Amino acid sequence: MLKHLILPVALLGATAAQADEGQWQPHQLLQLKGELKRVGIAIPAEKLADLAKHPMSAIVSLGGCSASFVSDAGLVVTNHHCGYGAIQRNSTAEHNYITDGFLAKTRAEELPGGPNTLVYVTDKVENVSARVLKGLDNKMSGIERHEAVERSIKALIAECETDKMYRCSVPSFHRGLEYYRIRQMMIRDVRLVYAPSDKIGNYGGDVDNYEWPRHTGDYSFLRAYVGKDGRPADPSPDNVPYKSKDFLVVSAAGLKNGDPVLLAGYPGRTSRYKLPSEIRYARDSAYPAKVAELQADLDVIAASTQGSAADAVRYASVAKGLHNVMKKTRGLLDGFARKDIAAVKDVQDAEFRAWYAKQPRAPQALLAELDAVIAADIALSNEEFGWSVATNSDLLKSARTVYRLALENGKPDAERESGFQQRDLTFIKARLNRLEQSYVGAVDRARFGAGLQRYAKLAPAMHVQGLDALLPAADAVPALYQSSQLGDTARRLGWVGQDAAAIAAAPDAFLQLAVKLHGVAMSLEERRKEVDGQLERVIPQYMQAVIGWKESQGKPVYPDANSTLRVTYGTVAPYSPRDGISKGPFTTVEGIVEKHTGKEPFVAPAALIEAVKAKRYGLFKDPVLGTVPVNFLTSADTTGGNSGSAVMNGHGELIGLNFDSTYESITKDWYFDRDITRAIHLDIRYMLWVMKEVDHADNLLKEMSIKYPKK
Amino acid sequence: MLKHLILPVALLGATAAQADEGQWQPHQLLQLKGELKRVGIAIPAEKLADLAKHPMSAIVSLGGCSASFVSDAGLVVTNHHCGYGAIQRNSTAEHNYITDGFLAKTRAEELPGGPNTLVYVTDKVENVSARVLKGLDNKMSGIERHEAVERSIKALIAECETDKMYRCSVPSFHRGLEYYRIRQMMIRDVRLVYAPSDKIGNYGGDVDNYEWPRHTGDYSFLRAYVGKDGRPADPSPDNVPYKSKDFLVVSAAGLKNGDPVLLAGYPGRTSRYKLPSEIRYARDSAYPAKVAELQADLDVIAASTQGSAADAVRYASVAKGLHNVMKKTRGLLDGFARKDIAAVKDVQDAEFRAWYAKQPRAPQALLAELDAVIAADIALSNEEFGWSVATNSDLLKSARTVYRLALENGKPDAERESGFQQRDLTFIKARLNRLEQSYVGAVDRARFGAGLQRYAKLAPAMHVQGLDALLPAADAVPALYQSSQLGDTARRLGWVGQDAAAIAAAPDAFLQLAVKLHGVAMSLEERRKEVDGQLERVIPQYMQAVIGWKESQGKPVYPDANSTLRVTYGTVAPYSPRDGISKGPFTTVEGIVEKHTGKEPFVAPAALIEAVKAKRYGLFKDPVLGTVPVNFLTSADTTGGNSGSAVMNGHGELIGLNFDSTYESITKDWYFDRDITRAIHLDIRYMLWVMKEVDHADNLLKEMSIKYPKK
Repeated sequence: MLKHLILPVALLGATAAQADEGQWQPHQLLQLKGELKRVGIAIPAEKLADLAKHPMSAIVSLGGCSASFVSDAGLVVTNHHCGYGAIQRNSTAEHNYITDGFLAKTRAEELPGGPNTLVYVTDKVENVSARVLKGLDNKMSGIERHEAVERSIKALIAECETDKMYRCSVPSFHRGLEYYRIRQMMIRDVRLVYAPSDKIGNYGGDVDNYEWPRHTGDYSFLRAYVGKDGRPADPSPDNVPYKSKDFLVVSAAGLKNGDPVLLAGYPGRTSRYKLPSEIRYARDSAYPAKVAELQADLDVIAASTQGSAADAVRYASVAKGLHNVMKKTRGLLDGFARKDIAAVKDVQDAEFRAWYAKQPRAPQALLAELDAVIAADIALSNEEFGWSVATNSDLLKSARTVYRLALENGKPDAERESGFQQRDLTFIKARLNRLEQSYVGAVDRARFGAGLQRYAKLAPAMHVQGLDALLPAADAVPALYQSSQLGDTARRLGWVGQDAAAIAAAPDAFLQLAVKLHGVAMSLEERRKEVDGQLERVIPQYMQAVIGWKESQGKPVYPDANSTLRVTYGTVAPYSPRDGISKGPFTTVEGIVEKHTGKEPFVAPAALIEAVKAKRYGLFKDPVLGTVPVNFLTSADTTGGNSGSAVMNGHGELIGLNFDSTYESITKDWYFDRDITRAIHLDIRYMLWVMKEVDHADNLLKEMSIKYPKK
Repeated sequence: MLKHLILPVALLGATAAQADEGQWQPHQLLQLKGELKRVGIAIPAEKLADLAKHPMSAIVSLGGCSASFVSDAGLVVTNHHCGYGAIQRNSTAEHNYITDGFLAKTRAEELPGGPNTLVYVTDKVENVSARVLKGLDNKMSGIERHEAVERSIKALIAECETDKMYRCSVPSFHRGLEYYRIRQMMIRDVRLVYAPSDKIGNYGGDVDNYEWPRHTGDYSFLRAYVGKDGRPADPSPDNVPYKSKDFLVVSAAGLKNGDPVLLAGYPGRTSRYKLPSEIRYARDSAYPAKVAELQADLDVIAASTQGSAADAVRYASVAKGLHNVMKKTRGLLDGFARKDIAAVKDVQDAEFRAWYAKQPRAPQALLAELDAVIAADIALSNEEFGWSVATNSDLLKSARTVYRLALENGKPDAERESGFQQRDLTFIKARLNRLEQSYVGAVDRARFGAGLQRYAKLAPAMHVQGLDALLPAADAVPALYQSSQLGDTARRLGWVGQDAAAIAAAPDAFLQLAVKLHGVAMSLEERRKEVDGQLERVIPQYMQAVIGWKESQGKPVYPDANSTLRVTYGTVAPYSPRDGISKGPFTTVEGIVEKHTGKEPFVAPAALIEAVKAKRYGLFKDPVLGTVPVNFLTSADTTGGNSGSAVMNGHGELIGLNFDSTYESITKDWYFDRDITRAIHLDIRYMLWVMKEVDHADNLLKEMSIKYPKK
């Protein structure tokens, strides 16, 4: 069975029309030639499939965001919100680059992006499924299997990272059916080149997040620097711009309704192949509980920061993150309410099972096994949710991190838990350090105490085995904070590298609590590994069967997103959120003025308003719209992680940047509904227009290769 | 001067492009031949201008609503909300025609519409300006002038109504520049033929009022009956259907985006020629005060009916009416906030005044006079608003009516105040009788008391001269209700026809209050007549000058709406309420299912949902939409009173019924903004589809002349 399972998906099946849906591995595009032609993509599939060739060679990851080179000197364009850390880090009361924007007129003026601003250039992707799956058998327990896979992956990564210029990973595809080793050059001297004011880059702010009509100039520019030897190097004034031999040409010729687009980037995570039972669990249980929890936590943060502007600022990004997750989760629930995706999947599932029952060599016990392991996964997910509610404290999380690190340090590096190896240390330290910016003792205390009270009221299924007796009473929480010094950054970092016994003996209340909870946490982790091992055993067989089923219909299958490089395509297209209304596909600069209230988040810069009112459209006037477009919609298949992704025309020229999706699209993580799913992009003409007419970034306009429309 | 003033407007000026805007008197269409051709109207203007010819001869008024004949046997189609009184009147607990709909399968089954269901057939329109304005001079006081005009009008009406089959009126056009005598045959035996369930006819209810997307099947059918002699007669089983020799052919061939439409009906009232100062008064003072007053009154009604379903039902239509006015007034304020119409008018006003200053023979004092008389009008309007707040009691209004009637009865009929003449008696009685359906003593008491308290807090300018000392204290109000029997319908009606002395001597508290307030009320009325007289003297001169100014630009001028027969035209057109969104022009039956929540007002009949889901579109599927359209938008110029108006294609065939406007259009009563103003129509194909597939009204489908699309 296993031997059959590891046939590369690329070899499977003929191509059939399946427009727009699909976050394809570049090599899969070879199966989609007919589709690419139909949509109007002129670049040959063979070229798109080759990471070493233009345009894919110009596509990079920022770790969580996507980006692309736009000059031969390492100039990178991405979203404003992706460059935000670098902008924020360089901002002071005197030089507020967030509100005022920043433009380096010379390379010498470019500012350090800081340790979290990284550029990953994918240079090699290998199918390593055979090596990962070698030696596995169905007699193994889940945990044995999971650990065997982890060992193989670690070995594959270690051999890849012998050259220190690379960062490697071995993500699974199709939930464990295939594994690819991705080698990326990690450039760690990345500098801020240019960002517009957040009055442009974040116009509409949280109010417009996930909304259309949208008028956000969500772009910024970074530059990758390397050592004089061309290899990644620690930040240094001696470094030189990275020679990005491939970069995207920018097209100001524009596009119109119905035009094809290609989009390349690093989508984070989708769940397109979940079973109806998993959707029902999310819809009826997990998501409603999550929304309630997020709202309760946000309420506690709001109450405990009230009256202190400084505290509110410290928790602004935490609250923003929680709000964002809540809006997305609410969007999923609204979407589930609007369209019964579970019922759609029921039909597909029934069809699949009927097909499967007729396959002579298919093990018929598989589907029962599948249902059982998913039930176990759901049960454990309930406990994991309970755990997250009960341990909602940054101090506790920090204490658990340093204690776990100490325990793992006691093992040889290869045997350490993933995330606690030598290679992870700088990230751990950065995280413990960064907490300083978003921590206030009184707020953390309130969040922890309130979380404990909420945990006590959760349904029994959400209580973690063995946990309740170990938790402090809510009224004992203040004393814990009085007896801990982990709120101090230096002391917190001081525990990194200490041994486990020293931590266990320390008189710090949160270190003691971390030690006390460790057994329960480990039990939860072990049980997760067991369930994951079972999932890794059963789901790939199921996915193999699904792929066979789709193959029998002539349809290729793309894997769920997993933060690896993908290509999607689609067309510029409006959509109808409901009967009698059409949204998009374009917004215009006039809409910025229309939305401008002078109150955040709708404050447009005076210079921009003036340019719009004077109709100073320059070279960027769209012939159909009669003005400068700002944002547009396409049917391309994206998700979180695609932020900053290059949106290209059929010739591979940059015509936009992806930055969001419409609210009605949120359910696309579960089900791609082509009538309603739309990604929101920045029209590159708006970016160029702001650069020319508002910010006067002529040096960058000169550095890029820009094709202007024919007069 | 006066001689010059009464030149018929029809003789003025050449035609210029001025698309869509305009509620034209039929005879004015002769000036608009080029426009009609440009839009695509095939019927010759000469035919449209002739009330005796098809299609205008098929257009009727229901008094407040518009309608049209659709068979040669007096079958009338109008809105559901225009037929609502007849439906409600016939509904009982056993036969709830409101929720279940009603269909007479034979003429014998048709139900009496009641005394308020009337059909007015306009058969003659004469320009009587010369007779009305004869003998007026500028030395007259305002009140002298006003009364002279009233006397002329009464005489013109009296001579017209010598034949009792007619009801005549002499409305003013251009605020007194012209007067036309309108003769209408008033058919008073009108029966309910067919109405769909309010789940169709009022789908979306108040929630969707003024909104788009819209999915309302707002239609119903009535039939006009006359005596065997062909003349209007009191309701009787002996009456026969009116022979409507002209009627509209119904076209099921449909229409598409951009197609021309003609719309004929009786628009109520617009204020398109108001001055900037009048707009500012409405925007900054009158409308905000009105909204606050309506909201306060609604709050009192809600509080005082709480806990009693029966009381709530009695005030449901009162509350609905107040809500409707409030939504409209709020829409006006929102519209004024969105677009500075006063500033637009400032520019026009300045241009006009500059032009006027150059006219050699124009009396230059006119504009100063105009500004002064408008200031007086505004000051008096403030007092009138105060009066309405202070006298917010149905019992007080009834008492004032019977006392006033008694006083007027003391004069010869011709000298009686308009509204209290012999010809008005049946209407007065009907009103006093109808109060029974919407009156509860405790609620009226609460509204009156609360109104008195609000009046006390109004700005001094809103207090009525001489009134304050005469008003009861708010805490004395309950005693008034204990000492009045006007809440009893028989007793209330019993005072009709009694003499003034008897009423003055009656021990009824509200009759006593009416007598006590009479002097102040009369003073207010006299002052209104004085101001109106001044307005009637100055405004026509101003309007004449405006018409001259427009004439100099080659533009014809239509008069403000005044409930007389008008024609407008336009095209099927979507609109953009804001950048990046487009609304309309069509909704579809699928949208009904999409909106259906099972909770009022979004409860669609099961049979309808079933037909939609089965895609049983029959002959009514639109080739572009691929389904049955429900409502559509056009740029035609409408207002209240146009409810039920026939929407015709360029050949004069019925393709829709007007029933509402979009929220963004509400300001059109003051300023027609062609980009944003859209009327909402029922697509006649939806009506026919419901008749065929849901309600099986085959008898009526057979009676009408329907053109089906070519296969």
